[in-house]
Amino acid sequence: MSSPAGGPAETRWTARATELCGAALSGDRRSLAKLLTAVENRTPVAEAALRRLYPLSGRAHLVGITGPPGAGKSTLVAALVGELRSAGRTVAVVAVDPSSPITGGAILGDRVRMQAYAGDRDVFIRSMAARGHAGGLASTTGAACSVLDAVGFEIVMIETVGTGQSEVEVAAAADTTVVLEAPEMGDEVQAIKAGLLEVADLVVVNKGDRPGAQRTASQLRAMLAGRRGQPGPAVLITTAATGAGVPELLAAIDARRAQGALDDDGATRLARAEAEVRGALADRIGRSLEDAAMAVASEAAVRAVAAHEVDPYTAADELLAGLIGSGRKDSK
Amino acid sequence: MSSPAGGPAETRWTARATELCGAALSGDRRSLAKLLTAVENRTPVAEAALRRLYPLSGRAHLVGITGPPGAGKSTLVAALVGELRSAGRTVAVVAVDPSSPITGGAILGDRVRMQAYAGDRDVFIRSMAARGHAGGLASTTGAACSVLDAVGFEIVMIETVGTGQSEVEVAAAADTTVVLEAPEMGDEVQAIKAGLLEVADLVVVNKGDRPGAQRTASQLRAMLAGRRGQPGPAVLITTAATGAGVPELLAAIDARRAQGALDDDGATRLARAEAEVRGALADRIGRSLEDAAMAVASEAAVRAVAAHEVDPYTAADELLAGLIGSGRKDSK
Repeated sequence: MSSPAGGPAETRWTARATELCGAALSGDRRSLAKLLTAVENRTPVAEAALRRLYPLSGRAHLVGITGPPGAGKSTLVAALVGELRSAGRTVAVVAVDPSSPITGGAILGDRVRMQAYAGDRDVFIRSMAARGHAGGLASTTGAACSVLDAVGFEIVMIETVGTGQSEVEVAAAADTTVVLEAPEMGDEVQAIKAGLLEVADLVVVNKGDRPGAQRTASQLRAMLAGRRGQPGPAVLITTAATGAGVPELLAAIDARRAQGALDDDGATRLARAEAEVRGALADRIGRSLEDAAMAVASEAAVRAVAAHEVDPYTAADELLAGLIGSGRKDSK
Repeated sequence: MSSPAGGPAETRWTARATELCGAALSGDRRSLAKLLTAVENRTPVAEAALRRLYPLSGRAHLVGITGPPGAGKSTLVAALVGELRSAGRTVAVVAVDPSSPITGGAILGDRVRMQAYAGDRDVFIRSMAARGHAGGLASTTGAACSVLDAVGFEIVMIETVGTGQSEVEVAAAADTTVVLEAPEMGDEVQAIKAGLLEVADLVVVNKGDRPGAQRTASQLRAMLAGRRGQPGPAVLITTAATGAGVPELLAAIDARRAQGALDDDGATRLARAEAEVRGALADRIGRSLEDAAMAVASEAAVRAVAAHEVDPYTAADELLAGLIGSGRKDSK
């Protein structure tokens, strides 16, 4: 059912992408929002738009903010946004919503807090549903960041709950990863925290007005000091609710830019580029499988695997042979 | 550097897989553990083993157990294992470890609890690291379940923390998904819970000896009753620490088998088969990209994308053209 490459549908998608990109680049926030919806749904319009916008991206500082539930991530993000706006700087926030693989419903309590910026064109808040898609969360979030980067936001913050594999990967793919410390919540959360600390460029003990915050920070400094060949990540204390420590955190984030965290040759940027290329490949392959001709083969293959008549690798080989056959035809 | 299909390396992998499968099928637990390590690392041995074992799988009841941190998942899993063993039934547990994308370190407090079964050949416990791999967690866990299923475990439980997208998907891919209710832990966790409930076949309020458990169960029943066209999931109360309610939960799980939850044509089994086929496709493509010839092209493409000289879709097109070229060569 899909149109062949270069057909009328592709022309229409390209025209729509050109229109949305032009408007978004000249500051139209509604068009920007529409582009991000297209990116989230991985439509052909998104692909055409990304082809256009990607060369314009690479200037923003991508800052991942992650940590266990209850650490105060949303409050800290709101405080950082406030700090950036006081200095007249532009900022976008991508909040990755882990709540539902089905409805993709948003949980943003911070949306309410952020209404202070409703009329402010230099702040853009977006929640992204964590939808099912092979390798999807990392590449979709990466693509959304590229769009926000291309239209000129200086800082793009990615807020994720750091408990799932995908969410941690998304945060770790930022130029700078900030890991928030949570109040103690049992062994499981403790272990999650230990995993998170490994991806941290900066560690923040939030709720710094609580007793024990200084002690926790000291313990973290001791724990992180000897764990790598190089000096461990800095450990800062903030009280996001009052704003205490937030200017210092922003200074530490900004210092990362000076330290070359945004170099195109940096390991993080290469890893992000690889995730985006793999995501694009997955899109291509996923779309090919959904093409009319492939869909029949693909559905039959899945049924055979579900009935345990064929193993997944044999099914994949057969589908791939079909994909290569149709690719060969297309490219002629 | 990799050997061509049918070359000496493939012969060696196949021989190794045949050896491990034979031993695992005749009850050798060390060989089973080695097979699962191969599956976790997605090695060619795993692929050869899965081709052999997949037709033997499809008999076990796969039971996903998920819920927020602190709900008591591990304790409940241990209680269910105890209940099954009292009845002389066999059970395997796959605990998906969300703690670290880097070390893949295990957090199993239940490992200690499970030491009671150290000499029991009819219980098999395995923790799986949630490693980075496009669509990997779902297909790797699915493959591990197929291996445990093929060697004859009657019930395979998959324990995941239900906070990340991947972990929820893994649990939801089971024949029967049990969602545990956690104590209240703020808005974020509440919202996570709401997302989780959508994938539940059975809802369990654990820590049933706490005040309010009955009220929570009533609220959940009211909330879940009208949400689907069909009757909502049953809501049970357990106190895993004492074993109260655990026999009733096991009876409800067993009843699902009678209700046809294990039908090969069921939507869940089809979705799982699709994830496995997509995982196998991703393996194929990932391995092709790592092949010597492709690796050079692929590294150059990633560098160009990182430098924002090329967009990910153009890079993907170029790589796919190379992949199709090499596939065409291979298939001749």
